[in-house]
Parts: sequence; C-alpha cells; structure tokens
Amino acid sequence: MTISYLSTNPRMSQATIHAGVVYLSGQIGAPGKDIAAQTRAVLTAIDSLLEEAGSDRGHLLQATIWLADMTDFSSMNEIWEEWLKDVTAPTRATGEVKLAGPEYKIEIIVTAVQR
Amino acid sequence: MTISYLSTNPRMSQATIHAGVVYLSGQIGAPGKDIAAQTRAVLTAIDSLLEEAGSDRGHLLQATIWLADMTDFSSMNEIWEEWLKDVTAPTRATGEVKLAGPEYKIEIIVTAVQR
Amino acid sequence: MTISYLSTNPRMSQATIHAGVVYLSGQIGAPGKDIAAQTRAVLTAIDSLLEEAGSDRGHLLQATIWLADMTDFSSMNEIWEEWLKDVTAPTRATGEVKLAGPEYKIEIIVTAVQR
Repeated sequence: MTISYLSTNPRMSQATIHAGVVYLSGQIGAPGKDIAAQTRAVLTAIDSLLEEAGSDRGHLLQATIWLADMTDFSSMNEIWEEWLKDVTAPTRATGEVKLAGPEYKIEIIVTAVQR
Repeated sequence: MTISYLSTNPRMSQATIHAGVVYLSGQIGAPGKDIAAQTRAVLTAIDSLLEEAGSDRGHLLQATIWLADMTDFSSMNEIWEEWLKDVTAPTRATGEVKLAGPEYKIEIIVTAVQR
Repeated sequence: MTISYLSTNPRMSQATIHAGVVYLSGQIGAPGKDIAAQTRAVLTAIDSLLEEAGSDRGHLLQATIWLADMTDFSSMNEIWEEWLKDVTAPTRATGEVKLAGPEYKIEIIVTAVQR
C-alpha cells in the first residue's frame, strides 16, 4: 500500500496518490485579487498538479469549494463552468468558510483519478 | 480507470462512482422549511442517489454535515440517528458553514461503497 | 465490498475501513483548553484510531482542519509540523469553521492507508 507524494514540505504535500486516486491540498492563489482572478489562479494550479499526478480536469471525482464570502458564488460558478465545458463535471459542495488570511477569497479541494 | 456519473449538468454531477466507491455532491432540500424538514429532505435525496448508484445508507463510509446554524445540532442529530437505526453509522464531522443561500439550513456530503 | 467499523455508536463510527483506506470521524479533544492542548489531544486521538485501524501518521492521505478561530493558525501549525517531523506530510486544507460547541477550537478529519 504505497503512497506517492508531490511538492512536499514539513506542513503538507500538494498531492498524494494511492491506488490510482489523486488527493490535492486545498488550492489558493492570486491573493488580494478579485474572485474571478483568484478562481482562475486556483483552477490553473489544479490543472498543473493534476497533470503532474497523471490526471486532468476530465478525471475529477469530487470538489469542495470554500468561499470566504458567498456573494462571490455566481462569479465563481461562471469561471468554474467555463473550465469544465469540455469534460464531465465532478460532484461538488460549496460552503462559506473563512480562509487562512483575508486576502484569500476561494480555496478548492479536489480528488481525481489517474488517467 | 473509468468514472461513472449520475445526474450531470454543466456545474456538477450528483454522483461519481469509481472502483466501487460512490461520491455524492452536497445535498440540500426543502428550502425555507425548518431543520427537521430540511434534514429529512436531504436524507431522502441521499437515499435516492445511493440507490441509483447501487449503494444504500448501510454502505456509507463518511459523512460531512454543514449546518448554517449550530443551534440546529440536536434536532438534526435526532433525525440522523433515526435514519441510521437499522444500519451501522459511518464516520462523521459536523461544522457550522453558511450555505449557498439563507433558505438552506443543512447540506450533507457523503461517500459510500457499492453493494 | 465490505466495510470495517471502529467505535460505533448510533450517531457515528470513529473509523471506517474499505479497500485498505481508513476514514476517521472528525476528532476533537481537551474541551476548554488552549489551542496547543486541543491540537495535541486531537493528534493523540488520531494516532490511537489509526493504530487500531492498522495505519499510522506516516500513511496519511489527506487532512481537513477546521479551526473555530483562524488566529490559532500558527500555534496549530507548530504542533502539526512537530507531529509530522519524521514522516511525509499528507495533503491538507484549513478553514475557519465553528464547531459543535464553543469549548472546541479545532477539529481534524483525516484519511489514511493501512500499512
């Protein structure tokens, strides 16, 4: 039962892989920017980590989206749906959760399957 | 490494299935009703999706419960325990998380195993 | 597709095990104590449950950390990193989520692999 790890530091790994399933750490990005820019930065980070893990956005199982302010819901959804327009969408849950600092508006946690 | 999807729209699928594990989207229901009615609606939606996915409440692995207001904790628990009275309960975590709209008091995210 | 359960009561099991993957319920501990004491109590509870499930802190896949107050972030991180100093860290996401009662400052939900 081996685990593979990507981008490990003393606090966390950015990805773990076990039995063909890829678990990513909560991704954040573009601190201080608006919700559109932050959502795009997070999805770009997810694309990059999934690629490194042998997966992609077409192989997502599950996404959990934390928004610091639920008024960003529709702006986030627009970019989210554009990102998934050529693939089948995973399961999802979105809740309002304050993040590690006020400069962050969105964090997304995904699980995927290797290609 | 194939994934099966249930009830897919451009934003999300209501279920993904991979390697015998079923992942459901966060379930909500009975907007504007009290916590008892909403909890029952959510659990009914979960029963229905699990059935469609070839599983049931007796094969749950994990549940994450988001309550918009933690004062609903004991009312939710009563209905939750009644729902599980004939099966073995899964792991669980419950936190206070504001949901997509103020008309929603509870969202439950579960993972299960196919029968 | 069998599931093993540990420490089951009518509301939840403390662990479920399926296909070599261990899912723990959200762990809390040391109610009313400071964040350092509560974090240590939670990590001790996780060590104990993982041991009972045939796993350990060196086989973690994923951790979700709920802090009732994000000002406890750095104090929690210090103890978290000390706990993981001899192993490879799992993926992680940390959000501010109010817990079942005000006497609880931290809850951690982990998934691991059996040794």
